[in-house]
Amino acid sequence: VNVVAPEGALPGALLLSEIREQPAVLERLLERTGEIEAVAAEAIRRGTSIVRMVGHGSSDNAASFGVYAFGILPGWTALRDSISLSVYYGAEVDLRSSSVIALSQSGRTPDVVEYVERARRRGAFTIALTNDPASPLAEAAEAIVPLGAGEERAIAATKTYTAELAALTLLAAHAAGAGAAYVDGVRASAVLLAELIERLEPSVRALATTLAFVGRMFVVGRGPEFATAREISLKLMETCRVAAEPLTATDLAHGPVAALDALFPVWMIASNDASLPAVVDAAKRVRAGGGTILASGPAAGAIEGAAAVLAVPPPPLPLLGPLLSIAPGQVFAWALAQAKGLDPDRPNGLAKVTLAP
Amino acid sequence: VNVVAPEGALPGALLLSEIREQPAVLERLLERTGEIEAVAAEAIRRGTSIVRMVGHGSSDNAASFGVYAFGILPGWTALRDSISLSVYYGAEVDLRSSSVIALSQSGRTPDVVEYVERARRRGAFTIALTNDPASPLAEAAEAIVPLGAGEERAIAATKTYTAELAALTLLAAHAAGAGAAYVDGVRASAVLLAELIERLEPSVRALATTLAFVGRMFVVGRGPEFATAREISLKLMETCRVAAEPLTATDLAHGPVAALDALFPVWMIASNDASLPAVVDAAKRVRAGGGTILASGPAAGAIEGAAAVLAVPPPPLPLLGPLLSIAPGQVFAWALAQAKGLDPDRPNGLAKVTLAP
Repeated sequence: VNVVAPEGALPGALLLSEIREQPAVLERLLERTGEIEAVAAEAIRRGTSIVRMVGHGSSDNAASFGVYAFGILPGWTALRDSISLSVYYGAEVDLRSSSVIALSQSGRTPDVVEYVERARRRGAFTIALTNDPASPLAEAAEAIVPLGAGEERAIAATKTYTAELAALTLLAAHAAGAGAAYVDGVRASAVLLAELIERLEPSVRALATTLAFVGRMFVVGRGPEFATAREISLKLMETCRVAAEPLTATDLAHGPVAALDALFPVWMIASNDASLPAVVDAAKRVRAGGGTILASGPAAGAIEGAAAVLAVPPPPLPLLGPLLSIAPGQVFAWALAQAKGLDPDRPNGLAKVTLAP
Repeated sequence: VNVVAPEGALPGALLLSEIREQPAVLERLLERTGEIEAVAAEAIRRGTSIVRMVGHGSSDNAASFGVYAFGILPGWTALRDSISLSVYYGAEVDLRSSSVIALSQSGRTPDVVEYVERARRRGAFTIALTNDPASPLAEAAEAIVPLGAGEERAIAATKTYTAELAALTLLAAHAAGAGAAYVDGVRASAVLLAELIERLEPSVRALATTLAFVGRMFVVGRGPEFATAREISLKLMETCRVAAEPLTATDLAHGPVAALDALFPVWMIASNDASLPAVVDAAKRVRAGGGTILASGPAAGAIEGAAAVLAVPPPPLPLLGPLLSIAPGQVFAWALAQAKGLDPDRPNGLAKVTLAP
């Protein structure tokens, strides 16, 4: 039973409608395959061995995923570069074998644009991933991958984030000569994501009601799913006013586990890959520390003693897991905000485009 | 008036004695200048242009500082590398112009040792920064910088962290041909740090008492001081059970500011450098969001409307700021734990050496 009232009537209607749009956004991005392939070819031609990603908020979270996409597929060193190092501290780093990928929904984040201008002057191949191909960022970069997510009206980004994940995957896959398999994989993921979101909407509401009191959370993911942990934390902070902190399974054991108690739930993302034993071990430490576990991800069933399970279907290819694993977090944040009496479309003190220094 | 009771009588006595030891640890490290210079020379001889740092907890926080030390001084690309990318996901990245710096107090963290073994086989120049020159990590690496911090008995690391900061600074400075200036700078910092710690101990207690109710905090720092923000957050999590999250000034504006309320203080580290306007702007957003500000760092006075100020003297060289800025956080964590009735020497569920997968 779908208990969602007509859109527009509810707080969070904008956020929910954009969460639902995501499968269509992924399918639209696949129409850009030719352009993405050409950008990847140019990165190779320019001798890329390092990918420097820059962005803020959700875009920076997508970059966390890019570290794995480029590391695993073409075997490139990919990093979330420090914007302040070049823009504020004037560091003069050799950029000749670097490609820069600047991620920005609006293409108007000032320090991201400035970073790209500097990097381009210093010889990097510069690529803009943005929704607005007429933005200053698109102007500053040599190449553009238009995300085509359409106008994002909710303040908490959702469809831009998944479009960024998919664009990074497709760039990395084309650079590794594996474009066709990943195009098929993203297409299949879009279908799975649509089913998942529909299934989550009614079921997550009950869970959110029982957790309406929560003010602190850890969100644990490892490898490519660390991006998911960061993005879920950000949604919980901005829409639910929860002090949510993303951690790798190993980070958790090195200190933060000491902070847990029964009112401090831990959201754990488990995948069927080599990181699973570390996540399962971390879950044991959480239980021993008295924390409540919410298990999610395709291997959620491997987490023992979870108070709630938000399962995710297995992805068509292992690296595509984060395209699906983010959905439970987005829908949960939408539901938890309402359970707390907050409107997730009106976060305290936030504007859609941040023009801060 | 120093109100501290005799050591051994108080919870947190171990932690406090190691906080106080830090100036002596810095001076001892300077006796290793010849060894550090030789390691830097070998890194240059091996054609280093990328520095890959690996470590967990406080060691990973020190690596955040290394990004700036190597970027600003020799102009090298430095990154906190993903351990899981090579150890769990088998990524095959070209490491020929890479130096690896593995940071571990004990030298016994299993995945750090495994990362170093793999990187060495793939052609990286591998350097261990550890307290134990007979550890498996020291064995696995080609070069060792012994931190010489002495046995660290408190579970929350303090003196190892500052020794790591100083060792990274000296490696970067020698690589840039600026060794002598930084040796002098670290020596002068040790003197300032000793005075600072003595001054902080009595004054911080009153502040901690008024904040005993705190369960959530953000800690904001930018550039080299982001490492300080991460390390203060970790101390607060592990000794005070506070959900403390490190953020850059820009991160804060991109979402987390929405979570603030009057019971959610923000610790802000301000330095007299190009990042100051961003930190001052972030402080305005915190006040507008209803958060309470604790201002720290050498430019703490530039933060308007702070509820408390924990000033830090100007460092002898700008990059050495984090050697001093960490002290207020360490002493505050020690005092806040006691104000909350916790023993910072007995965190819940933590052991000194984490042997998790």
